[in-house]
This record gives sequence, C-alpha cells and structure tokens, in this order.
Amino acid sequence: MSSISDPASFPEPVDLSHYLSRTTRAREASTIKRFYKYFTIPGIGQIAGGTPSDKYFPYDTLEAKVAHPNRFRPTPNKPLDPPPNDPPTAPLAASSISPRKHGKDDPPAARLFVPHDSGVPDPLRMIDLKSALQYGTAQGYPSLYYFIRQFTRNNLHPFVPYKDGPEVILTCGNTDGFAKTIQALSDEWFEGHDPVEERPGLLVEEYCYMNAIQTARPRGMNIVPVAIDDEGMCAKGPGGLEDVLASWDSSKGRRPHMIYTVTVGQNPTSGTLSVARRTEIYALCVEYDVIIVEDDPYWYLQFPSSSPSMADFKPVKSSGFEFLDSLIPSYLSLDYQGRVVRLDTFSKTVAPGCRLGWITAQPALVERILRITECSTQQPSGFVQSMVAELVMGPQSSTDPGKGGAADGSGWKVDGFVRWLEGLRGNYERRMSAMCDVLNANKHLVKAGRRKSLSEVASDDEEWAVVEKMIIYDFVRPLGGMFVWVRFNFSTHPLRKQVPAPRLAQALWVLWTTKPYLCLVAPGSMFAPTAEIRDADAYNCFRLCFAACPEDEVADISKRFTDGAQAFWRIRSKEKIDKLLEEEDKEGEAKTDAGMGMLMGVC
Amino acid sequence: MSSISDPASFPEPVDLSHYLSRTTRAREASTIKRFYKYFTIPGIGQIAGGTPSDKYFPYDTLEAKVAHPNRFRPTPNKPLDPPPNDPPTAPLAASSISPRKHGKDDPPAARLFVPHDSGVPDPLRMIDLKSALQYGTAQGYPSLYYFIRQFTRNNLHPFVPYKDGPEVILTCGNTDGFAKTIQALSDEWFEGHDPVEERPGLLVEEYCYMNAIQTARPRGMNIVPVAIDDEGMCAKGPGGLEDVLASWDSSKGRRPHMIYTVTVGQNPTSGTLSVARRTEIYALCVEYDVIIVEDDPYWYLQFPSSSPSMADFKPVKSSGFEFLDSLIPSYLSLDYQGRVVRLDTFSKTVAPGCRLGWITAQPALVERILRITECSTQQPSGFVQSMVAELVMGPQSSTDPGKGGAADGSGWKVDGFVRWLEGLRGNYERRMSAMCDVLNANKHLVKAGRRKSLSEVASDDEEWAVVEKMIIYDFVRPLGGMFVWVRFNFSTHPLRKQVPAPRLAQALWVLWTTKPYLCLVAPGSMFAPTAEIRDADAYNCFRLCFAACPEDEVADISKRFTDGAQAFWRIRSKEKIDKLLEEEDKEGEAKTDAGMGMLMGVC
Repeated sequence: MSSISDPASFPEPVDLSHYLSRTTRAREASTIKRFYKYFTIPGIGQIAGGTPSDKYFPYDTLEAKVAHPNRFRPTPNKPLDPPPNDPPTAPLAASSISPRKHGKDDPPAARLFVPHDSGVPDPLRMIDLKSALQYGTAQGYPSLYYFIRQFTRNNLHPFVPYKDGPEVILTCGNTDGFAKTIQALSDEWFEGHDPVEERPGLLVEEYCYMNAIQTARPRGMNIVPVAIDDEGMCAKGPGGLEDVLASWDSSKGRRPHMIYTVTVGQNPTSGTLSVARRTEIYALCVEYDVIIVEDDPYWYLQFPSSSPSMADFKPVKSSGFEFLDSLIPSYLSLDYQGRVVRLDTFSKTVAPGCRLGWITAQPALVERILRITECSTQQPSGFVQSMVAELVMGPQSSTDPGKGGAADGSGWKVDGFVRWLEGLRGNYERRMSAMCDVLNANKHLVKAGRRKSLSEVASDDEEWAVVEKMIIYDFVRPLGGMFVWVRFNFSTHPLRKQVPAPRLAQALWVLWTTKPYLCLVAPGSMFAPTAEIRDADAYNCFRLCFAACPEDEVADISKRFTDGAQAFWRIRSKEKIDKLLEEEDKEGEAKTDAGMGMLMGVC
Repeated sequence: MSSISDPASFPEPVDLSHYLSRTTRAREASTIKRFYKYFTIPGIGQIAGGTPSDKYFPYDTLEAKVAHPNRFRPTPNKPLDPPPNDPPTAPLAASSISPRKHGKDDPPAARLFVPHDSGVPDPLRMIDLKSALQYGTAQGYPSLYYFIRQFTRNNLHPFVPYKDGPEVILTCGNTDGFAKTIQALSDEWFEGHDPVEERPGLLVEEYCYMNAIQTARPRGMNIVPVAIDDEGMCAKGPGGLEDVLASWDSSKGRRPHMIYTVTVGQNPTSGTLSVARRTEIYALCVEYDVIIVEDDPYWYLQFPSSSPSMADFKPVKSSGFEFLDSLIPSYLSLDYQGRVVRLDTFSKTVAPGCRLGWITAQPALVERILRITECSTQQPSGFVQSMVAELVMGPQSSTDPGKGGAADGSGWKVDGFVRWLEGLRGNYERRMSAMCDVLNANKHLVKAGRRKSLSEVASDDEEWAVVEKMIIYDFVRPLGGMFVWVRFNFSTHPLRKQVPAPRLAQALWVLWTTKPYLCLVAPGSMFAPTAEIRDADAYNCFRLCFAACPEDEVADISKRFTDGAQAFWRIRSKEKIDKLLEEEDKEGEAKTDAGMGMLMGVC
C-alpha cells in the first residue's frame, strides 16, 4: 500500500463491473454536462423543463425549534477503571439528562429558519425552499450533498486508501440504500427458471438484521450465514468466512460475492468488530473477490466503558476530533481495492423519520446507484434535506436570512455535529450501563429460604446446592449499539426433561408480558437468517433494547426482566407452562415468527 | 354493472396475481396483527423494538409559514364564450396574482406548527414529532394516510365500481410509485438469457414521459408505442390500442400486459382523454387482460377555456365539490375489474421536493406494493408527512398545540385543499392562455415589405403569394397540464431541398438559444420512446412549458419563441445553418439526445 502522505499514489479501485446486475448495466449514462452551457445562458427563457413555479408552493418558509449541539452530556472517550463488569456508577449515571418538558422547562433551543429565497447564488451554499422544494438532482440537495461528502471524506473516514477516495450519494435511509445496492450488484434468480450456477449468495452474520434478509431473499438470493463470536463475523475456524468460501459447494449456487454486515453494535448481538478482525476479513474478500456492504447505523455509539482495550486503535490519519479518532474505523479505512459499500443514516443521529442517509463507495459504483435513484426515489424529501442542511450549515452569507442550529444563529457545523454525536453516545452509554448492571446482578438463580448449611452439602438434597449457584443466562456487555443479547441456558431449568427447550423459551416470553413483569423483548428467532439456525439455537436467545423505553425506566424494566427470568426458573409444574401457552397453542403458530419480525422489522 | 346505490353489490376486483413478478410473489406477508395485543398491554416495558428515544431527536417542533387556501384566484369551471382560439383576455389575464415578496408585501399566511407531542392518543389523529420522526408503517404516516385515503375514496374518485373500492399507499412521488408498480407487475427479462416468449411489454403513448421508459427499459421490457391523436392514446385505427394488441407478433415477446399513460395534460403532447375514449380503451384492456397504470400529476389542471365540450361530462356520483365534479374522471371511475393502478403526487399541488405521492388500486395489489415498500423506502420522510398532515388537518383536539394552514389555526381541510387546487388551476390556465394567444397570433409567416397588390397575383412571382399565407407550425390549445406541443412543417422552409429537415430542426433549436430570442425549448426527440419515432417524426415537434418561467414573462418568452421561428423561416442560406450548427457538428452527437432528457427527466 502507498504512503499516507501521497493519496494520489494510492491504487485505483478495482473494476467491479462484472458484478453489476443486468438491469444496472442496461441503464444509460447521462450525457447531461454538454447541455449545461445552454441552461446558463444569461437571460435565457426557460420553457423547456416541466417544473412548476416555486411561487406556487404553499410553504413560504420552514422553521423549527432545534437542540443546541451540547444538549446532552458526553461520556469519556477512554475507558475508565474499574473493569467493565463492575463499572463506576457515578460517571455513567442516567441522572443528569433533563427530560423534555414543554413550557418554561424546555431545554435551550435555537430557532431554525429556512427562507424561501436565500439570495445565495452558489448551489453548493444555497439552502432555501425555491431550490429544496423544486425537482432536484439524484445525488442529493447540492448543499447537503456537499456537506456530507466533505464530512465523510475528511472527518468520518479521513483515510480511504484508493486513488481519489470515495464518492457519496444521498438515500432515503439505509433500507433504501441497501435495496439499491443489492439491485445494482445482483441479478434476480428463481428456482426452476434460472440455472443454479447463476444463483447469487449473500453472506450474513449467523444472527442478523432481518430486514436485509427480507430484501435479498425474494430476489432469489442464497442467504449464507457465517459463524459469529462476541466481536461479530468470524474470519477463521469452523463456519467462519474462510471456511464458508473455501469449501463452497457450487451445487447450491455461485460462491457468494457479497457480505451484508453490521460491524458496530451489531443488530441483534451487539458485536463490535476489531481492526484486527476487519483486516482478516478484508484479506479474504480480496482473495475471493467479495464485496462488503457495511451497514453501520450505530457506528458512533461505541462504549469505551465496556472495553478497556477497544480504544487501543490508533487512526492512520486524524479526523481532527478526539471523539471520532477514538472510534473503531470503518472497513473503508482498509479498502485499498474499493470493494466496500458503506451505508450511513441519520436515523439514529437525528431521527428515523428523516428517511435520510447516504452511501459511500468507489465512484463507479456510486454512478450506477445514481442511475437507479433517478428512476426510483429521485432524491430524499426536500423538507428534510433543507432542514438538516440549515441545521448543520446555517446561513451562507451576511444577507442570507436562514438560521441554523447554533445559539448564535449559525449552523452546528462539523464541530457541533460531532458534539451532538458525543452527547448521544453519552445518553446511550448511560442507558446501556443501567441495563447491564441490573442484568449482571441478577443472572444467578438464588433460591432464598432453601439455603442449606454447609454441613448438609453432599446430602441426598445435593441438587439444590448446585442450583443455587446457577447462571440462568449470560450476556456480553455491549461495546456499541442499542442492544444486549441475552443467552439462556434452558438445560438448567427444573422442567428441562418434561418440556422441550423451545417451548420453555416461548413460555418465558409470554410470562414476561404478564404482571408484574410486563416487558416485551425480541425473541432470538426474529434474527435467525435460516430455518436451521432458528430451530437449533435461536430460542435460547433474546434481544433487549435499551434505547426505546423512557430513560428513567431502563433499570426498572431490566429488573422486571430479570425478576421474570428468576420466577420462570422456579416453575416446577408442566401445567403452568401449558397454561402460559394456552392462547398461543390455540393460535397454532409459534409467536416468534416472521410476524413479530415485521412488526419490528424497521428497527 | 351494479347499481350505484349499492356499492356492496359491485363485483369483486379480478385476480391479477398471474401478473405478479416472481420477486413480488416471493415476498412474505406480514402476520403482524396477532402481536398487536402484546404491544398494547398497559404499562408494558418496551425493550423489544430497536427504535431510538424520541427525546433524542434534535427537532423539538417543526413550523412554517404557509399559504391560506385562497391565495390564488380560480378560473371558472365552465367554458366561456367566445370559442377557445379567440379567448377573452380579461378573465384569464395573468395580472392579479401578487408576486411573492418578502417583508410587508407578503401575501397573508398562516403559522404552521407541528408539536413534539400532540397529546392526541388516536394514531389516525396524531400529528406530532414523537410519532412522525419515529420509525413508521409502510402505508404512510397514519393520520396522513387516513386523510388521503378518505379524500381519494370520497372526493377524488367517489365512484369506483368494484366491491369495497380501492386502497391507497403513500409513495415518495410518482417516479417511486411507478418503479414499485413495475417491480410488482413485471419480471426482469434479458435477451440471450430469458426466452423471448417471456419478454414483458409496456404500452405507451407515441410520445411520452421518458422517465417511465428509463424505468422500464433497463428491466428488458419491450416498449410498445400506441398511436395518439389530440386527446391521447387511440383505441381504434392503425397503430391504435386494438390494432397493436390484436395483431401482436409474439416473436417480439409476450403481448404487453401493461399500459403506462398520462391521461390529462399528457407529457409532452398535453392530450386529455375524454370519457368516451377511456371507455373504449378500458373495454380493450378487459378483452386483452391489460393493466392500466394511470400517472396523472396534472389531473386537476384541466382548462375549460380550451374546450367548450369538455365539461359536458356528468359524474356518476358527486364529489361534493363543483370543481372536482367538473373534471374528467380517472380510469378508476370505469374500473369495475380493478385493473387500474393510479399514481397521484403532491409534486404539482404542493411541491416536487416533497417527494410525496400515493398509489390507488385494488387492495390485493396495494398489499404487494406495501411489501416492496417495507424493504425499500419504508415510508416518505416524516418531515414532509407531518407538515403536510398538519397543513391540511390542523389540531385534532382542543388541547392539541398543533396549528394548521387555515387563518384560524385549523387545517385547510378538504374544502381548503380543493380551493387551493382551484387557485392553482387558475394560475396555470392564465399562463396557458397567455402563451397560446401569442403562439396563435404568430403561426403564419408574414413577409412584410414584399406584399403584392391583387393584380400581381398569378404572375411569375406566385410563390411569394403562397408563402405569405403559410402556417409554419401548429398546435392544439391544451385542455390540461403544463405544456404546449408545437409541430413544425419544415417542408415549407426555403432550404427544404438543400438541408434535411432534422438538421433544420436542430438549427432552429440553436437559433432560439441565441440573442435576441433566448429561449430554451424541449426537442420532441426527448419524448420519443423508440428510435423509429425519433428518426421519422420527432424532429418536427417541440414541447413548450408555461409553468417554469416567471409568470409575467410567459407572453414575452413566447413572443421570442415565435420571433425565432419567423426569423428561421427567413434564412435562405445553407451557410447560415452550418454556422448555427458549427459547435454541435464538432461535438459529434445530436443535441436532442438522452442527455437533455436526463437533464429534464424529472419533469
């Protein structure tokens, strides 16, 4: 690889056009540029384009009350002593974030203002309704596109080791971004219609985000799980990436040429992939010509308090921000061949309802996705594009009547956006800590009232002495994201011999929904990409999310969860299980099916 | 067909599942409903879904300054005397719309306000940021979805003659709606890969909106043009729909099973299809099992001043509004089999940058498109959904702090939205009138200074007498939309024998871009769906749009257009043509290619 000091000497990204789908290849490139000269003739009367008059838009201005970037308190960028499973409660206590109230208790806010006409002539600095609410370009609203492009190239991923670096295109969120990526890079395939040797495959984590599967599977893609450990996808070992690729059985289709992966705070297991592991996997992708689609909505939610070693990584090139430098970098930072397609979203940094994100990849791929965008979404809504642009960029000249998200009326700028991310990470890290502390304190079954004196140990009642020390579930404190993945050990349940473990798991799920436990958790089967994994293992696992419930209830709901688990391990009658599952048995299907996945499929 | 008084006796829509694409068939239906009961348990602790906390969205409120529904002056719903090509100038004069200025001259406006929390518990009446900026359902934001569904079923299309009527789903505009429709209803096909008898076809107007073609063609679809007349698609006669379907040559692929059509103010020809023609075409679609995809962004822009006969139509069932009742109804009003998929958009009623529209069709098809939406766009942006919902619906209870678009703080309501449409129609009808009056007054070539006395007629200078009366172009005054389609007759040009007509057309296009004419028009070739049409006829035509330029310049730009045409017909030297095309000749390709289409492809 070339010297960091001379990016022009980086290798060209490799040509991936052999992986373009037939549809994507057939899309015509735009020869737009040669016509610009006519459009910019001074005084030209425009009666060619079919755009409506911006004078007829009913919105004269868009405005908002918006947070200052420092609304929330950050957590430190470096891990703290003592070690993670006994963390200090003070710095991570969830106490100091003022809950939002309306009226005089409102947290300080700025007045966002998007004018009808900014008076700014440069499209890259123009934020106004006459342009944002008009037809636009598929790259994205020019000013926002340009901000995101600079932020991506200079701050998020300052080191991408191929010539001239990546290009970006705005999307309507990561589900849209993934749908376009997969449409660009794989042909539809159908059993009985297309030859098996053409069947494309998608490599995924053994437990993964099902919306991606639901996008790929109806296209006929082979969904190929790869073994995971606490970090995420395994490179080596049985079922790891190398094993899957090297031993590929081509009677099942083509050797998969794409990975879909969530590398930080993986959904659902919360795995966070180290740089060492990324390096191993990237090398395999080079060897086997595999494209990595990296979907990283939780990337900036990395929790140093969970891992003293995580922050040992030192970036090749600084982003200019201590916070960003402390994050495990994207696969892009290793991508000397241009085989990484990264999906970013505002869903977790601003709001899911934005439906706003972006793809970062080598320019030739982005150009093809641009063509797909022209004939589908065209661009994200101008309402969100202009309001996010104004939030971060603010007015662009002394006469621009726009107002941004900073206290002085300017935009958040990159500094403010990074500060906002730090505050969010702080909030989620405190929540994570609150949940994990409760989970950790209650994972052993304690049979109060049946404790025996030491002299009784090894009597005929020995079994109880064992049970009293039993861990009924375990989990790894997440290094990132919004989830805790809890794995139960049903072989320790008193009814293990009378009731099959999947049925115990189902009954446990129902018990949690009853008083006094009252909590709704996501069953592991929702995240099993294949029927084999669902039937063999998924019932042991549950995904807990510390992001959705009110902040001051995280600990309490977590306690109800652990109380429910404890109570379930005290059930010694099969009839009680049957009673819990009475309604479910009537309805015929397992509860933990795709339906629940759909219900939460967007999350 | 059944009695209008008993919609329950209407026939069930026909089963169109034989036309579903393989991908669309493979999408799993959601079994979501059976889980609702768990989500609604009082006090349930939600740690299942992976949604972020709405307290962490940086937008506390969204606000706007918005037009009152009566900002613009309507035109009459009934045609006026005298006849269209000599219209009265007074009632349609473009004089009384105040141009938008900032400051004290601003037109009256309301203050829109979307609160963080409306306090309204019913999702169908909830308009606030805690819900709109959260993950949502693929149908659309519930309150807006429900408003649009009612408006569509009760007001826009009060009579749809199949049992229980149509369903709707929100889209990110009509390009998105069409992309999803075509994905639902046709398989991808590729020469050399798939058997020719599987090749799907799309019937389109002889000149049509190219973005639709650019969506369909890369999927391998056969683009099949159907002859048009001034109304739009022809049912009978050579090249009409019946002729194309009855004489289908299956060596070119399957007989086409879909029509893509713009039925009102067609883009580019501005044709507007009568009810009689719709009835003929619908009957053919029943006979040949064809699905009609009706894309009607200009539907409410129907111009009675252009057509004394247009408003003769009497609706089967009233919408409750004189304005809506006066409009030629959608194909839906004839759709007793449920084979119409209608695409509606806010692009021309609110703003193109909304990226917001909806599909109306039989419920079984809408359900499949819902599945596609779940794995692509998910939902339109919550920014635009909440702001449009608040505009039209306003606060939903006495304690809801929201504010809508009406002067008293309530929403526009259906009345206000219809009034807004009437005002827009008024604006565009006045623009149309201004342009067409100029075009009509200047279509004859007048050779001033060479006029001869009557006694000289039939002398050896006879040719000039003929030229003096010559029509150099013609057009039909549009019954709807934003365009005038102008057809030139290059066989009357003095250089007709030295320069091929396509080259004359190209030179004319360039002449218009030069001083003093300075106008940019869309060449007909941009709208030719096949190379045959492009080469045989398209060069004769140009599309003029009266919507994009400033209102008070419509007449002036139109005059520059006619001056340019007149001047071009006075060019008698081939060298002048060569000089005009010098730069174009250098660049090699014809200007009127796909590039320009891309540039204006979204319009």
